[in-house]
Amino acid sequence: MKAFSDRLVDAIRKTGNPCVVGLDPRIDLMPAFVTSGRGAPTADAIRSVISDFHELVLDTVAGLVPAVKPQVAFFEQHGTAGMLALDNTIRAAKQRGLLVIADAKRNDISSTAEAYAAAFLGETDVFGQQQKAFDADSMTVTPYLGRDSLLPFVAACAKHKKGLFVVLKTSNPGSRDFQDLELRATGRPLYEKIAEAIKDCGEPLVGESGYSSIGAVIGATFPEDAKRLRALLPRAFILVTGYGSQGACGRDAAVCFNTDGMGAIVSSSRGITYSYGRADLARPAVAASVRENTLRMIEDVTGALKK
Amino acid sequence: MKAFSDRLVDAIRKTGNPCVVGLDPRIDLMPAFVTSGRGAPTADAIRSVISDFHELVLDTVAGLVPAVKPQVAFFEQHGTAGMLALDNTIRAAKQRGLLVIADAKRNDISSTAEAYAAAFLGETDVFGQQQKAFDADSMTVTPYLGRDSLLPFVAACAKHKKGLFVVLKTSNPGSRDFQDLELRATGRPLYEKIAEAIKDCGEPLVGESGYSSIGAVIGATFPEDAKRLRALLPRAFILVTGYGSQGACGRDAAVCFNTDGMGAIVSSSRGITYSYGRADLARPAVAASVRENTLRMIEDVTGALKK
Repeated sequence: MKAFSDRLVDAIRKTGNPCVVGLDPRIDLMPAFVTSGRGAPTADAIRSVISDFHELVLDTVAGLVPAVKPQVAFFEQHGTAGMLALDNTIRAAKQRGLLVIADAKRNDISSTAEAYAAAFLGETDVFGQQQKAFDADSMTVTPYLGRDSLLPFVAACAKHKKGLFVVLKTSNPGSRDFQDLELRATGRPLYEKIAEAIKDCGEPLVGESGYSSIGAVIGATFPEDAKRLRALLPRAFILVTGYGSQGACGRDAAVCFNTDGMGAIVSSSRGITYSYGRADLARPAVAASVRENTLRMIEDVTGALKK
Repeated sequence: MKAFSDRLVDAIRKTGNPCVVGLDPRIDLMPAFVTSGRGAPTADAIRSVISDFHELVLDTVAGLVPAVKPQVAFFEQHGTAGMLALDNTIRAAKQRGLLVIADAKRNDISSTAEAYAAAFLGETDVFGQQQKAFDADSMTVTPYLGRDSLLPFVAACAKHKKGLFVVLKTSNPGSRDFQDLELRATGRPLYEKIAEAIKDCGEPLVGESGYSSIGAVIGATFPEDAKRLRALLPRAFILVTGYGSQGACGRDAAVCFNTDGMGAIVSSSRGITYSYGRADLARPAVAASVRENTLRMIEDVTGALKK
């Protein structure tokens, strides 16, 4: 199997765009034909509602985009039923040829970080057998715990040909609170120091495409910061957030790309999957809405990259 | 129900110590009588091995310590089977009168942070019914995403009388990499700026005990930093990590307490649950080892607090 970064480049070339569909299971926003007639909200009903809705979305976007991004929080809020649905969703996406980014924002120290890496990227030994848990192609992690907290994930990426996106500059207003703080030693923002660590971790994992499997999460809502980070991390894949519902457009996202139009993927979740507004739409109308939203995003992002 | 901080103070007074037993399911370290004869490593076998071992530990430490701390990573590495075991373990601990700290180190932005808060502290609406997911008494979160990322957790704590421990200064060597960086504006470490945010978030949640339900995670492996943070956060409960296997002792942990001997809890995991070394020990011998390790830790920590 190729390195994650090379598989991602291949998928972007094949689909002709760098758009990622986010899967945020929100049962209250799903169409009635998926949720109705389920009886009591049992674990089975929850797992099945979420899995069924995502299969509709996955059937619609497979072949259109290179990857999907399940947001683990929205699964986890449904407890074990939600985590069963996450497992179903990851499998269903891979079966349809889509790369999977588990947006988990996990991290911890030493052997605990190893356990999270095993959970989403690697394997765990059980009675002498190696088992996969949530078998994504890549995941997101947070950096605050230090460089050594990233290394178990980097090792899992190297061993299992998986990818990592380290949270660097987020799209929310509060991303200014700590990420932007200027350091005494350099006069530069904290996030640039973290970018250095991402660069160092990523260098041994640069693939044939010239891109590393160790990337960064950057919000398109702060395009000036994104532009500087793009320059600091020429070989990192950037997972661009904040597109759509958080206000960023294709032009904002474009600054996260290299001049060759490669090196970033742009994610949108609710703007793709829950924009139809009318809960009583039938299956074909919901699928048509998901497809139209995806095509509109692709046009916006690829259009901005051509300029 | 009382505020989390007041319930924690009550439990510490009742048991006479601030020690927390960490539950890190490591099947490879569990005694043979728990793991053997299970046949294939099916989801059912994994869930049952982890749940059975934890029931032994919980039966042993109930009444001895105020709280237990399941480390979610070690459950999650076993996928959905592990998360079922987490649910079992949380329920079993609460049934035995132990407070539960879900060591999850989650976080994200806006409605995604709300979903994580719902997953561990609150409720999620399903078909008009409010359901709990992993119903812990408190959880750990990371701060890098900013103040606004903490607010949904603080709101859940206020509404559901739960507690939060924000990762502040961790016990690993890499905690120096970013947490200790001096800021240009203040000449002080980044972690002090984050401590300010924890203090601000925690003020509205100070209970009758004088302690807030919004606390901090601080490693006892850096006692000088811990001492300064204790002074900056007089009303925060500190979850002290790094005790035991990471080298910190009762004297190191003692600097995390206020002069009244209250305001912190000290966690130890593998040093309590997996120190017996011999996989072929029978159930009573394993229980005796867990009990002895717990009593030794209690003596060390309470002894250091008396000095």
